[in-house]
Amino acid sequence: MEPLHDVAVRHFASDNYAGAHPEVIAAIAAANGGHAVSYGEDPYTARLQEQFAALLGEGVEAFPVFNGTGANVTALQSMVTRWGAVITPTLAHINTDEGAAPEKIGGFKLIPVSTPDAKLTPDLIAAVAGSRGVHQAVPQVVSITQSTELGTLYSVSEIAAIADRAHELGLALHVDGARIANAAAALGVPLRAFTRDIGVDVLSFGGTKNGAIGAEAVVVLNPDAVTGIEFLRKSAMQLASKMRFVSAQLVALLTDDLWLRSGAHANAMAARLRSGIEAGLADGSIRGVSFTQPTQVNGVFAALPAGAADRIRDRGFRFYDWNEATGEVRWLTSFDTTEADVDAFVAAVADATRG
Amino acid sequence: MEPLHDVAVRHFASDNYAGAHPEVIAAIAAANGGHAVSYGEDPYTARLQEQFAALLGEGVEAFPVFNGTGANVTALQSMVTRWGAVITPTLAHINTDEGAAPEKIGGFKLIPVSTPDAKLTPDLIAAVAGSRGVHQAVPQVVSITQSTELGTLYSVSEIAAIADRAHELGLALHVDGARIANAAAALGVPLRAFTRDIGVDVLSFGGTKNGAIGAEAVVVLNPDAVTGIEFLRKSAMQLASKMRFVSAQLVALLTDDLWLRSGAHANAMAARLRSGIEAGLADGSIRGVSFTQPTQVNGVFAALPAGAADRIRDRGFRFYDWNEATGEVRWLTSFDTTEADVDAFVAAVADATRG
Amino acid sequence: MEPLHDVAVRHFASDNYAGAHPEVIAAIAAANGGHAVSYGEDPYTARLQEQFAALLGEGVEAFPVFNGTGANVTALQSMVTRWGAVITPTLAHINTDEGAAPEKIGGFKLIPVSTPDAKLTPDLIAAVAGSRGVHQAVPQVVSITQSTELGTLYSVSEIAAIADRAHELGLALHVDGARIANAAAALGVPLRAFTRDIGVDVLSFGGTKNGAIGAEAVVVLNPDAVTGIEFLRKSAMQLASKMRFVSAQLVALLTDDLWLRSGAHANAMAARLRSGIEAGLADGSIRGVSFTQPTQVNGVFAALPAGAADRIRDRGFRFYDWNEATGEVRWLTSFDTTEADVDAFVAAVADATRG
Amino acid sequence: MEPLHDVAVRHFASDNYAGAHPEVIAAIAAANGGHAVSYGEDPYTARLQEQFAALLGEGVEAFPVFNGTGANVTALQSMVTRWGAVITPTLAHINTDEGAAPEKIGGFKLIPVSTPDAKLTPDLIAAVAGSRGVHQAVPQVVSITQSTELGTLYSVSEIAAIADRAHELGLALHVDGARIANAAAALGVPLRAFTRDIGVDVLSFGGTKNGAIGAEAVVVLNPDAVTGIEFLRKSAMQLASKMRFVSAQLVALLTDDLWLRSGAHANAMAARLRSGIEAGLADGSIRGVSFTQPTQVNGVFAALPAGAADRIRDRGFRFYDWNEATGEVRWLTSFDTTEADVDAFVAAVADATRG
Repeated sequence: MEPLHDVAVRHFASDNYAGAHPEVIAAIAAANGGHAVSYGEDPYTARLQEQFAALLGEGVEAFPVFNGTGANVTALQSMVTRWGAVITPTLAHINTDEGAAPEKIGGFKLIPVSTPDAKLTPDLIAAVAGSRGVHQAVPQVVSITQSTELGTLYSVSEIAAIADRAHELGLALHVDGARIANAAAALGVPLRAFTRDIGVDVLSFGGTKNGAIGAEAVVVLNPDAVTGIEFLRKSAMQLASKMRFVSAQLVALLTDDLWLRSGAHANAMAARLRSGIEAGLADGSIRGVSFTQPTQVNGVFAALPAGAADRIRDRGFRFYDWNEATGEVRWLTSFDTTEADVDAFVAAVADATRG
Repeated sequence: MEPLHDVAVRHFASDNYAGAHPEVIAAIAAANGGHAVSYGEDPYTARLQEQFAALLGEGVEAFPVFNGTGANVTALQSMVTRWGAVITPTLAHINTDEGAAPEKIGGFKLIPVSTPDAKLTPDLIAAVAGSRGVHQAVPQVVSITQSTELGTLYSVSEIAAIADRAHELGLALHVDGARIANAAAALGVPLRAFTRDIGVDVLSFGGTKNGAIGAEAVVVLNPDAVTGIEFLRKSAMQLASKMRFVSAQLVALLTDDLWLRSGAHANAMAARLRSGIEAGLADGSIRGVSFTQPTQVNGVFAALPAGAADRIRDRGFRFYDWNEATGEVRWLTSFDTTEADVDAFVAAVADATRG
Repeated sequence: MEPLHDVAVRHFASDNYAGAHPEVIAAIAAANGGHAVSYGEDPYTARLQEQFAALLGEGVEAFPVFNGTGANVTALQSMVTRWGAVITPTLAHINTDEGAAPEKIGGFKLIPVSTPDAKLTPDLIAAVAGSRGVHQAVPQVVSITQSTELGTLYSVSEIAAIADRAHELGLALHVDGARIANAAAALGVPLRAFTRDIGVDVLSFGGTKNGAIGAEAVVVLNPDAVTGIEFLRKSAMQLASKMRFVSAQLVALLTDDLWLRSGAHANAMAARLRSGIEAGLADGSIRGVSFTQPTQVNGVFAALPAGAADRIRDRGFRFYDWNEATGEVRWLTSFDTTEADVDAFVAAVADATRG
Repeated sequence: MEPLHDVAVRHFASDNYAGAHPEVIAAIAAANGGHAVSYGEDPYTARLQEQFAALLGEGVEAFPVFNGTGANVTALQSMVTRWGAVITPTLAHINTDEGAAPEKIGGFKLIPVSTPDAKLTPDLIAAVAGSRGVHQAVPQVVSITQSTELGTLYSVSEIAAIADRAHELGLALHVDGARIANAAAALGVPLRAFTRDIGVDVLSFGGTKNGAIGAEAVVVLNPDAVTGIEFLRKSAMQLASKMRFVSAQLVALLTDDLWLRSGAHANAMAARLRSGIEAGLADGSIRGVSFTQPTQVNGVFAALPAGAADRIRDRGFRFYDWNEATGEVRWLTSFDTTEADVDAFVAAVADATRG
């Protein structure tokens, strides 16, 4: 089959617009041929367990699933009782972008907490924790996104403080790690140092946004925090029959730190984009652009002058409007963004804002 | 990455033990590179629509999903109201092997109907159709599996009769086509001749068991039969972000009739297996094996003498016990089963039953 | 307010057509006035606990709810995990008359078992028990109805045998006791002798069909069999704010054995009806009526000659067609049925069938 | 049966602590006797329809249910598709006090909006309205509570403005009228003037808090706004078998404006309580009490000096802490609160705060 799309064009819209890393494709091909036991009893899924144990320590268990919503809902449902609730930022993906699957499939209530940078704090959590008995779903889990939907990053100590307070309050801690690779690269510490070692109970480990074709894993860091997860993955329709192909993608990402290198690259491209814009603002080649969030991982959030977004798009680039009312846009980089892509984009921004 | 499994070994356990057709892997690779719009607005998904239109006529629409359960639940949920029920054989996959996802995620009741060959008939349907008002979930859909979980096949006229009676009774007709390719090959008529042209409303078109790594599609044949399917696919966690890779697999299967050729091959291997056993029974080299279902597609269901199943397994073959109490086993062939595989298996059966 | 209906007319349609026992109305009035803590912290609910302890032994706990479906779903949901299934006769009320609330609200799968008298047996249960791992909802509970939807009755030893086998199979036992009073009266043994003492884990104790205006209780006989029932009653919308009025109805029924006397009376009226018909058949005054089930409690199931049902109705009586195809009807008696009612009805049957 | 509680004691805790109006008890007794068709085909339910038609105009339909949560969830589920969401204040009963039944049974997402007086405005609604396609549950309904959980009241024009904006935005409008009688009395206009005539689509008409033992009704004001409500009431386990007794309670409330007179009385008692406290503050007999919300219906929300709440309780009164951190309490009056009750309570507040 010939490609049906232009393989030379890359955008700044979403890390989901990117394709797969060649190593991932190679892993899928390597996992092919012959017969392997279905539903997870295959050697690729076993290898994945070894890799996660190496990364996070003995005793963790990974449950590969198809997509990020599947990972989050499977994880959270296994962490709450049928009368439980999950405290999360209002801007969390589970609250804004998962089609109410958490409520409908997970069967738990979300307690959204407003926060300007999409990050929770111990005090914000404490303010909504506590049970009023049977009248209200009982807060049982805190779910944070690392890195966040606004491209912000929790520091190790911020997560540790959340974990400590959550546990004091009787709450377990889930991390939506759809972009955990970008976070790990930005923090510059081992994955376990900002997850398992400081009290994160369950991690949704993201692969799709980081070069898989479609592979995530629920990684149980604290086995006491979950119940029935194998059954819940099945009834959530997230159990792959030919699981070897899902696991092989994740194995490829975890081999030779491909996941981390890809995350670091995407971050570097976002940094390059931000500094390119800043330089343009400084030398006057770019006008009227301001930043609405810090660039800590692979996203640049900016407010543009009226009409500028359309003019950039006229030059062939795609990206998301984040807030049409304020002219805020989101520019994301991915594992395959090149320096040339960034430089061309900065030039387009300059063209579009010069006046 | 090197393969972690023996790529030369094939079993008779499940078409889910098989890997992917090389054309499918090639299609995934071809769809890679560059950026493509996520969530289905990509050219591979568009091409897939054209292919299904060519196969089934204008006006059909395909919704790619991850797995068979996802296809069935998305399809059926889009066909029923919140107070609807689905009539289906007791042995249907939706009733026995989907972890209650139809009830839990689809939110509809199943009305299982006992039938020895896993096939419904118009009269069996009529016996449980009809509404008793608000007290009972209202039967609104009939779901049949073609080919069935017992390796049996509905003829074109049998499906037509079911569709006619279902529609007379105010019921829509869904076909679980996890093995639709085997059925199409066995019937020897165009797909539309035994689906759309005779009144099937929605088809779960299976790819995974037929050489995909993981790709199915809900194909809406009668747009009036569904409501909100795009939303329901999302909330059922079956919307792929990088959908191009799901669609590309299906595109490969639909190109040059690969799906049909693969189905025909698997069927031929099952026929070879059955006739090999029959020949052995005739010449005395095989003893005590009897068949419990006709072999109409890619499965052989047989009752073995005591101990024989274990002795065959000792020779390196895997397959499923279907009914441990009666010694019934299920042997399935797949797109990659070879004549040599079959002949070796027949020899093993002979060895194991000679006494 | 004046009555809007004819308070002198009684039918044979349903024990739900009957009103309330005067003692129940008196209890509601007695519970009125002043303020009482809401949601169950009132003295009527406390008294009810004492009554059930006296009846069933120390350690039981009763959870009043609004209606029978609410009782069954609350009970069963508290007994299963989120991947559980409930084995029950196909004709069970939970399968046929609860609008799929068990599946939709309880979130569990029903495994219906065909049985001609609506009664399960240990062997029928064993045939569908057992887990196939994650692929299928796991049978965890058996639910039987005592007395059944067909007016049949389990003997003490039949229930004991079911409880024993269920427990051996790792299943808990629930009894839908919407007509438990009729059963207790018919068996002539204490309630605990055919429930708690022989292994029933949870009982839905019915009040509504037996002279309450609307009051049932989930009675937990084995506390180890349930989890989170207080939360589940609330989220199932079955927690009464002014619970004193629900509990007071049940207190009235349990005072001086009113529940049992009412059940016995209804049974006696059904027996009188049956023997009246039998006498008519013997002396030729009634023709062509045959019985389709034994009359063990308060129901008479009969097959009528063509047209007879309508002719009886023309004489002012209401009752249900049970199977229109076969002319089978259901005649139910209730706590308020009088001997004169029965005799008039027998006379009407005679009129209608004399030819 | 003798009363088990002190019928002479009344509290300020909740209108759910109150019992039933004698007319309601009389209506239950009047509806008793004889047989009436179950599940709503009785003359009391028919009379109720006539009463609501007289109150709200022809074309409305009322669906009696057991409790407030049942009314809200049945109403809202009938108003949304399976991918819908409901915009509501964070403090709304459906968000805080219904055990997540809206999400779990209704199957819809809540979009909570923070607002200090528990009242929405057109602008607050507009800020969260709008669809982002399949990724997010689609806002389809606005639900407001009249009068609110904070004892505040929407004016007619405020509701009209909300209805207009909601309809412009494609949203339907639901009113949780658990305390609609207090609102009607306070507004001093006919019920239809602040509901149906200005665009409210569906009303949860509350009876329980206003002198019923347990009776609410979903009143459909705009039939085009609902789908399948009869089925949804059943599957939500809110369909009473002996519905005559639920309907009779509501009939009693609607006869001779009992509902309105009771609401007015409760409001007057709250006003007396507030002015009594204010007088005490003015003359120095009460110290350190401040009001946190206006008293527009039957509630007084106040902040007390440290220790005062306990000292009032020591004098035999019960009421709710609303915010333990700030010392805020909620005092509610009900249809049966007497002037003497209020005066005694004011005296107790004086005793407790004099220092």
